[in-house]
Amino acid sequence: MSSIAVIGAGAVGCYYGARLAEAGHDVRFLLRRDYDAVAAHGLHVESIDGDIHLERPAIARASAEIGPVDWVLCALKATALEAARDLIAPCVGPDTRILALMNGLGVEEQFAAWFPGTPVFGGLAFTCINRGDPGRIHHIDYGPVTIGHLGDDPAELTRALELWAGAKVETATTPSLLAARWQKLCWNVPFNGLTVTCGGVTTDIVMGDPELRASAEGLMRELCAAGNADLETYGVADRLDADAVVDSMMTRTDAMAAYRPSTMIDFVEGREMEIDAIFEAPLRRAAGLAIATPLLAMIAGQMRILGAARN
Amino acid sequence: MSSIAVIGAGAVGCYYGARLAEAGHDVRFLLRRDYDAVAAHGLHVESIDGDIHLERPAIARASAEIGPVDWVLCALKATALEAARDLIAPCVGPDTRILALMNGLGVEEQFAAWFPGTPVFGGLAFTCINRGDPGRIHHIDYGPVTIGHLGDDPAELTRALELWAGAKVETATTPSLLAARWQKLCWNVPFNGLTVTCGGVTTDIVMGDPELRASAEGLMRELCAAGNADLETYGVADRLDADAVVDSMMTRTDAMAAYRPSTMIDFVEGREMEIDAIFEAPLRRAAGLAIATPLLAMIAGQMRILGAARN
Repeated sequence: MSSIAVIGAGAVGCYYGARLAEAGHDVRFLLRRDYDAVAAHGLHVESIDGDIHLERPAIARASAEIGPVDWVLCALKATALEAARDLIAPCVGPDTRILALMNGLGVEEQFAAWFPGTPVFGGLAFTCINRGDPGRIHHIDYGPVTIGHLGDDPAELTRALELWAGAKVETATTPSLLAARWQKLCWNVPFNGLTVTCGGVTTDIVMGDPELRASAEGLMRELCAAGNADLETYGVADRLDADAVVDSMMTRTDAMAAYRPSTMIDFVEGREMEIDAIFEAPLRRAAGLAIATPLLAMIAGQMRILGAARN
Repeated sequence: MSSIAVIGAGAVGCYYGARLAEAGHDVRFLLRRDYDAVAAHGLHVESIDGDIHLERPAIARASAEIGPVDWVLCALKATALEAARDLIAPCVGPDTRILALMNGLGVEEQFAAWFPGTPVFGGLAFTCINRGDPGRIHHIDYGPVTIGHLGDDPAELTRALELWAGAKVETATTPSLLAARWQKLCWNVPFNGLTVTCGGVTTDIVMGDPELRASAEGLMRELCAAGNADLETYGVADRLDADAVVDSMMTRTDAMAAYRPSTMIDFVEGREMEIDAIFEAPLRRAAGLAIATPLLAMIAGQMRILGAARN
């Protein structure tokens, strides 16, 4: 069994942390908003994959109370990336590993720069989880996590899979974290972006419009082109097959019906949106690689202005 | 002096109608919302080019009260195009001419189809005029009108200029109405579209963002390509020079500072937006001509969904 610090115990962090606790791991949650409720009543997860009730989970108001652990599960919003260093640092010892369950490009590289020598992993969660009342999490749909290692070391990937082996979470590994991050952007950029710029609608509205379907596909192709140039630059052999990406993403999204992407939820609820990690970071990389991404540029610009309006 | 029916007496119709009345023409306004106020107190225009107060203008609640005139000045919103036929018909006699002071592609062709044999003109107004209290119009900035004839007959253009000769309005003619309509779209599509999809901002916000500037230019280039294919199809010799269009539009828009495009005003005030005339019509023509317009498709799709949300 491993000791695990859950940093950023929002919906995603609480859900996956609870699944690991359910599997018997020593999970310690860093809480703010929900501390009092969880201290009094425990942590409740209502899930399509089976409810979880942790009666007395280990909780802390400060990372120093948690101390060094085997695994840091960082599920902060990408907008809080700057704060992550101080929140994570007290939990990092010589044998710690960090798994970032976060959106966007560049997060793992940032963690590696802050914590040299610490193995860093990225977890790409495909799920729909919301916070309810304090101490209550609603896991609505989906749940698989794809894990990559920054460095793409197969032995490290095996260790990551071992962590999740007993947990009721569908996990897989990717041979290239960078390729997986770009592939995830192929979904997040069009669907987080178009659902927001259309005023805060669900994915079925986008998928039901012929021009927006074409725009989603066009965005995916731009991201594959930029991603492949980026992979080449980093010496990674993997390539994104644009036709296959478009085909699988569109098929999957058609099947999802009225899905609410995380950024769309942030938008309609008036919260800060993950614009840098999802839109600006790939745009910067594409520009640096001289890959033309006119649709990405337009939606990034629109998201930037929409986001600035609420800061 | 000519008899003129102003159909669609909103801000634009009242302003230009008042300028023609000021010049001595027999101008008759079809009014709805403002009828009682104008009957009681006249029509007041506050204008940077000199105020106008028409104490007892000729006003009507129905077009039949106006009857056949020399000129129909139609300044309906493009969203009301379907209603235009019945509103205009009672004012059309054998010697009537129609001038459409409206946005978008295809308006004049529609009028010509409804009123065969009646000369139809398009007026492209570059101005900023708002309605105030009933019977009050605020002309904030700009005001030139470029007039084209559906058929591009120079003799007809001369007649149109004669109508405006004594009026305090800067007028010009265009040898190709179709080219002028496409050129106007090169401004309206990017700036009406981006100011709305960015949440209802002024043009300076768009112009201050490097990606949105590039998007505006990209939209202009797509529209020039589609417009030139359209002009070729219609056998018109004029062509849009994309570099020159981009250069002049961007320079002009930089100089405009915090301008509120009409569609952006409609958006923030919760009114129906002119989506078909400004976005859908050029998109349909481009598709029919097999010209790739991916940025236009995306912004048209976004506008369509934003517009549908308020119907």
